[in-house]
Amino acid sequence: MSIQKPSLPKGTRDFGPLIMSKRNYILDTIKSTFKLFGFQQLETPSMENLSVLTGKYGDEGDQLLYKIVNSGDFLKNVRAEDMMDGSHRVLPKIAEKGLRYDLTVPFARYVVMNRNDITFPFKRFQIQPVWRADRPQRGRYREFYQCDADVVGTDSLICEAEIILMIKKVFKELKLTDYSIKINNRKILTGISEVIGEPGKESELCVCIDKLDKIGWAKVQEELIQKGFGEESISRLEPIIHLPKEDKFSYMADFLNLSAVGLQGLKEVKDVYELLTMSGASEEHLDFDVVLARGLSYYTGAIFEVKVNNVSIGSVSGGGRYDNLTGVFGLEGVSGVGFSFGVDRLYDVLEELNLFPQDSLETTAVMIAHFDQEGLGYGLKVLSFLRSAGICAEIYPESAKIKKQFNYADKKNIPFVIIVGSDEISSGKVTLKDMKSGIQTLLTLEEVSKILKG
Amino acid sequence: MSIQKPSLPKGTRDFGPLIMSKRNYILDTIKSTFKLFGFQQLETPSMENLSVLTGKYGDEGDQLLYKIVNSGDFLKNVRAEDMMDGSHRVLPKIAEKGLRYDLTVPFARYVVMNRNDITFPFKRFQIQPVWRADRPQRGRYREFYQCDADVVGTDSLICEAEIILMIKKVFKELKLTDYSIKINNRKILTGISEVIGEPGKESELCVCIDKLDKIGWAKVQEELIQKGFGEESISRLEPIIHLPKEDKFSYMADFLNLSAVGLQGLKEVKDVYELLTMSGASEEHLDFDVVLARGLSYYTGAIFEVKVNNVSIGSVSGGGRYDNLTGVFGLEGVSGVGFSFGVDRLYDVLEELNLFPQDSLETTAVMIAHFDQEGLGYGLKVLSFLRSAGICAEIYPESAKIKKQFNYADKKNIPFVIIVGSDEISSGKVTLKDMKSGIQTLLTLEEVSKILKG
Repeated sequence: MSIQKPSLPKGTRDFGPLIMSKRNYILDTIKSTFKLFGFQQLETPSMENLSVLTGKYGDEGDQLLYKIVNSGDFLKNVRAEDMMDGSHRVLPKIAEKGLRYDLTVPFARYVVMNRNDITFPFKRFQIQPVWRADRPQRGRYREFYQCDADVVGTDSLICEAEIILMIKKVFKELKLTDYSIKINNRKILTGISEVIGEPGKESELCVCIDKLDKIGWAKVQEELIQKGFGEESISRLEPIIHLPKEDKFSYMADFLNLSAVGLQGLKEVKDVYELLTMSGASEEHLDFDVVLARGLSYYTGAIFEVKVNNVSIGSVSGGGRYDNLTGVFGLEGVSGVGFSFGVDRLYDVLEELNLFPQDSLETTAVMIAHFDQEGLGYGLKVLSFLRSAGICAEIYPESAKIKKQFNYADKKNIPFVIIVGSDEISSGKVTLKDMKSGIQTLLTLEEVSKILKG
Repeated sequence: MSIQKPSLPKGTRDFGPLIMSKRNYILDTIKSTFKLFGFQQLETPSMENLSVLTGKYGDEGDQLLYKIVNSGDFLKNVRAEDMMDGSHRVLPKIAEKGLRYDLTVPFARYVVMNRNDITFPFKRFQIQPVWRADRPQRGRYREFYQCDADVVGTDSLICEAEIILMIKKVFKELKLTDYSIKINNRKILTGISEVIGEPGKESELCVCIDKLDKIGWAKVQEELIQKGFGEESISRLEPIIHLPKEDKFSYMADFLNLSAVGLQGLKEVKDVYELLTMSGASEEHLDFDVVLARGLSYYTGAIFEVKVNNVSIGSVSGGGRYDNLTGVFGLEGVSGVGFSFGVDRLYDVLEELNLFPQDSLETTAVMIAHFDQEGLGYGLKVLSFLRSAGICAEIYPESAKIKKQFNYADKKNIPFVIIVGSDEISSGKVTLKDMKSGIQTLLTLEEVSKILKG
């Protein structure tokens, strides 16, 4: 057997210890915030029946689903004619299962299958990998984590307000200060399409407006004309695109005056602002953006998007309210609101802004170095003492040269080394070396324990 | 489109909030113990190239690998002749990737690919799901978590001793008291096969002896005879099977007297015991079992197995020392020792023994009930106060009937409800209801905060 150099599938990654500890810093912050707000964790299987996944993400999404070959003689139902017809004909006969494409469809399936046991409103969060057979590129992977929180079974705008509070809390914990939480409401977009004289065309309007940041107003106008919007409609739309920062609410109240649904959307945004004020939260970071659309025809009420300013990939979170989560599985009337953090993007943002705190990274607090059998015996007792005190500690497993042992601690970013030699043993103390400053001090175990517990 | 009732693939499970909180209780205990002992976390992708996975788990294992259909026109390399030859011929042409079968092979691949960046000895832990296309049955799933810790790059027996210390620590935290950590050494089994006069046949000996617990000594003898062991050899083996509990070490020293390798194995077990004593650990729960084999030809030194006594599924952990982790990928000389916790089995054991602590389960500490707009305003302020104090809290999102709100808290196992009515608002206090006892008390927010923080 020739031995092959092993490799990773394209678009996938190993997360070694340093990266894991940074990822855990982000995920633990998000998780504890979700819990602080009363959300409960759900995990669903990586594999779903293709009948559950197919048709939920559009034709392109179906193409990007990873399918799993049936076990055993997977060709048994495939006939020669199927082969002639090509892959699309053969696929359903050889693959029944696929990998999770997002966390929303599995959540909807879970709600439908457990509807009699779930207490609504159901506040769930879910942090798991998803898979997409997409072309890999910078920042886009074939396996990546999603991080969703949703409340289903209530129309209360308190949920929208709490999503904003959670985003603020997570960003505060991560020391991110320069960011905007954009908020809008799908009903406002519907209202706008009504008052500019193009009722019922808000989907097209959304698709075009969604590109405003990327292609600019001139190009958006061209696209609107291509989509059949009249010139008069477009000129009626223009003031909205260049809305003044001040008095947005009163300006929009005038603008949407003739659209009941538009005014309803405006009221909902105002109510969310009011709930935030009642909660004692400031309006800092909030940005009511009447052209925020997020391209998804899926949302029916609130729409959120969070952008970190002055970094290369800014959009790190988004979400909104939807009317019908579970309709595709035959259960009507389950509405809700949810949002998602992009963990990989947050990682890149924190890296770019140098915001990962050195001292919160997971590492052993102290390593014990020893040089002979007697030192080992003493070292093992010191080790037990420290671990009993809850201090993450390890002993170098061999009586190696001091340089080798220090090098190990250094490479592993262990901040302190305890040195156990004959002087230490006879005095009943230990020498603690601060690896950064190089300073060594002879101390009692209690003193060491105090220092290491910070 | 007809609407289908959604279902889960066979052998997979959803983990709802209550189950997740119990699973997290186990996983967090294991994780924090691994970290306390200086192990660092690794995560590898769910998908691996089939060239990495195939041939590592025997023929049966290859059958149980989940394979992923190539993206795009996956049939493009398949010819009619391949079809005639059947699935085994077609499979390599339509699937390049598979799902992780265990955590050991991906770990070996990671070590080989990152050998220049890793500081040895490398202490890594890994907690991720694995997938096997096995026939599902009680306690056996197609997707399940493995929970591995390994030290590679050192022969030091300190690692063996630390594995035992970690198992003891985890079991103590989980309040498991009635269990045995069986320990043996592959070299002792080699020595036994030598001294009974069947040198070189320790693999067959291991396979037979491994079944001792299940089928008994009489049946094991039959199997040994079938495998070509002589009657004299078997009668020489018998005293080992019925070894007295006392003085095992001196008995075995006599028994293995003529086998150098056997005596070496015995010395290693003794050294591990000695290292434990030096660490201040008792021999409680330790069981030197000279016929423990674990059936795996893979181990070359220490062998471990942990059994919980008096429960239906007892074996919850196991591991051992191996000489050559990465040889299949062309990197020789990486030896190590590792072990694994069976999370699903630990879950079943804790459930059977009723050991999940009620108060450590993740749930909201308190829910706020309100009945009108004024109560909502007051409630939101109370909510912010509690969350700032780090208390997991939520407000019922609607001004619903009190019964409905209490029912929600009850179903979600929330232990306290804060009631906000006009009396509370005018006094600037809140009423705290203990959901278990039903007792209601009018308290200041500081008092509530103290109670909820325990």
